[in-house]
Amino acid sequence: MSILVVGTVAFDSIETPFGVAERILGGSASYFALAASYFAPVRIVGVIGRDFPQEYLDLFTQRSIDLEGLKKERGETFHWRGKYHEDINVRDTLELHLNVLSGFVPQLPESYRDAEYVFLGNIDPAMQIEVLNQIRHMRLVVCDTMDHWIRESSKELRAVLKRIEMLVVNDSEARLLSGQNNIVRAARAILKMGPEVVLIKRGEYGVLQFSDSSIFATPAYPLEEVFDPTGAGDSFAGGFLGQLARSGDHSQRGIRRAIAYGSVVASFTVEDFGVKRLTNVSLSDIEERYQGFAQLTDFHT
Amino acid sequence: MSILVVGTVAFDSIETPFGVAERILGGSASYFALAASYFAPVRIVGVIGRDFPQEYLDLFTQRSIDLEGLKKERGETFHWRGKYHEDINVRDTLELHLNVLSGFVPQLPESYRDAEYVFLGNIDPAMQIEVLNQIRHMRLVVCDTMDHWIRESSKELRAVLKRIEMLVVNDSEARLLSGQNNIVRAARAILKMGPEVVLIKRGEYGVLQFSDSSIFATPAYPLEEVFDPTGAGDSFAGGFLGQLARSGDHSQRGIRRAIAYGSVVASFTVEDFGVKRLTNVSLSDIEERYQGFAQLTDFHT
Repeated sequence: MSILVVGTVAFDSIETPFGVAERILGGSASYFALAASYFAPVRIVGVIGRDFPQEYLDLFTQRSIDLEGLKKERGETFHWRGKYHEDINVRDTLELHLNVLSGFVPQLPESYRDAEYVFLGNIDPAMQIEVLNQIRHMRLVVCDTMDHWIRESSKELRAVLKRIEMLVVNDSEARLLSGQNNIVRAARAILKMGPEVVLIKRGEYGVLQFSDSSIFATPAYPLEEVFDPTGAGDSFAGGFLGQLARSGDHSQRGIRRAIAYGSVVASFTVEDFGVKRLTNVSLSDIEERYQGFAQLTDFHT
Repeated sequence: MSILVVGTVAFDSIETPFGVAERILGGSASYFALAASYFAPVRIVGVIGRDFPQEYLDLFTQRSIDLEGLKKERGETFHWRGKYHEDINVRDTLELHLNVLSGFVPQLPESYRDAEYVFLGNIDPAMQIEVLNQIRHMRLVVCDTMDHWIRESSKELRAVLKRIEMLVVNDSEARLLSGQNNIVRAARAILKMGPEVVLIKRGEYGVLQFSDSSIFATPAYPLEEVFDPTGAGDSFAGGFLGQLARSGDHSQRGIRRAIAYGSVVASFTVEDFGVKRLTNVSLSDIEERYQGFAQLTDFHT
């Protein structure tokens, strides 16, 4: 079961209390694809500029990620510059250059149109719809978004929400989208907009999952070293959808386990700058930490 | 197995986005005692003023809480006034009148000196030591504290930490006490100061537990209505130590279950103003929500 992801492939320039990194590989599709690649074959839809180095493309192909849908356009690659505070949960965006991303219209290669698992990364909802329109049949679509699209592209986003199975957002996005301050009420309101499942990411505090019939709450894997939180959310989504595709188990039990796998993969990502840790972890490292995670959250059995 | 608690018995005046309450029953010993009373006999050590109404004392005696150690002094009862923001996790202290609490020296009645389970509520560490000095033999001592004592009574607090089994603090107190920003490192540093177990309360995000050999993480029980968070931490401690006393199981498994019970009791407390919900819940309500909590956090079995 292969997974299609549409999102950004970017340069990130990052400053954290522990160091700086200049123009390293970033973007939602990059983190998602690398994370999901431990579980299932992954295909990327996105755009890069002519300045994008071969060495970064090699990181994808080493993990057998299909790049046929990654277009190279004249111009520069999307570039984000951000700075994390002493409290690593807080960050400022210092620069944002859309570059080749502005005006990008996703075009799926013929071989991508039978994708069964789809992740709509955090991009313009109009582009997300474009991708959905080109896929012949989908089994499971998971979507991410952000405050900017909730505010500026509300109509398009609402149309996306009607066509997806699962939405992944953080606390403040859930509150903004629903107009509800209490997070349980916010999730219930979002369920009414279309998705069958809403996942609320709470960073170091874990994840909440809501459906009409069930609530699931899990903490994050506690870490002694959080080096760089960039990409944690997309790594979570990659581990989550990857495990769903690998297991084919979409039951509540299967979804819960997939959330735990997503949390585990994200915990590796933040242990080093950019995709560094995510590209040198092994599946057995992931399985081992999953077992540890199951132990450290269990109180009843 | 009875439990001794030393802490404040107070008037609270509270404003939340959902309403106001004037001079209602509050204080760390009050919340702790009412919460723990569902699990084991409780004895209070504390002080009130002559203005303290019989109706509040009745709330304790209805729950069979022993008040022999609650002294009534000439003067007014400790009074706290606070206001919660729209974001209910943030609050301001508007007034704080120590009144009869200033200069209070705890004196344990003879019948209290065989206490096996002890909760040192958030009061001056010098008073906490005074209490420990008067108890003949202790099985388990759990201690709470706050930023004020960490800053102003560091020496006394360090002496307390050497004599207790478990410390209960929130994120920011753990960081302040340890000088470590990362919460895992903060907990490890505190373990070196004396306690065998450190519990980190994270409000709506749950609890982390650290010992030399084990880490446990649990989310909070997700609630649609958080009416008044006052007393959640002390209710957690009451449910926690109550369950430890009831079960006598101090193993890692027993501690984890006790944390879950504490979380459940705290989730009831915040559903209404002050101790209102905490005094009209039943043990079977608690047991039922505990089962629900076990279900909504389980992903592996």
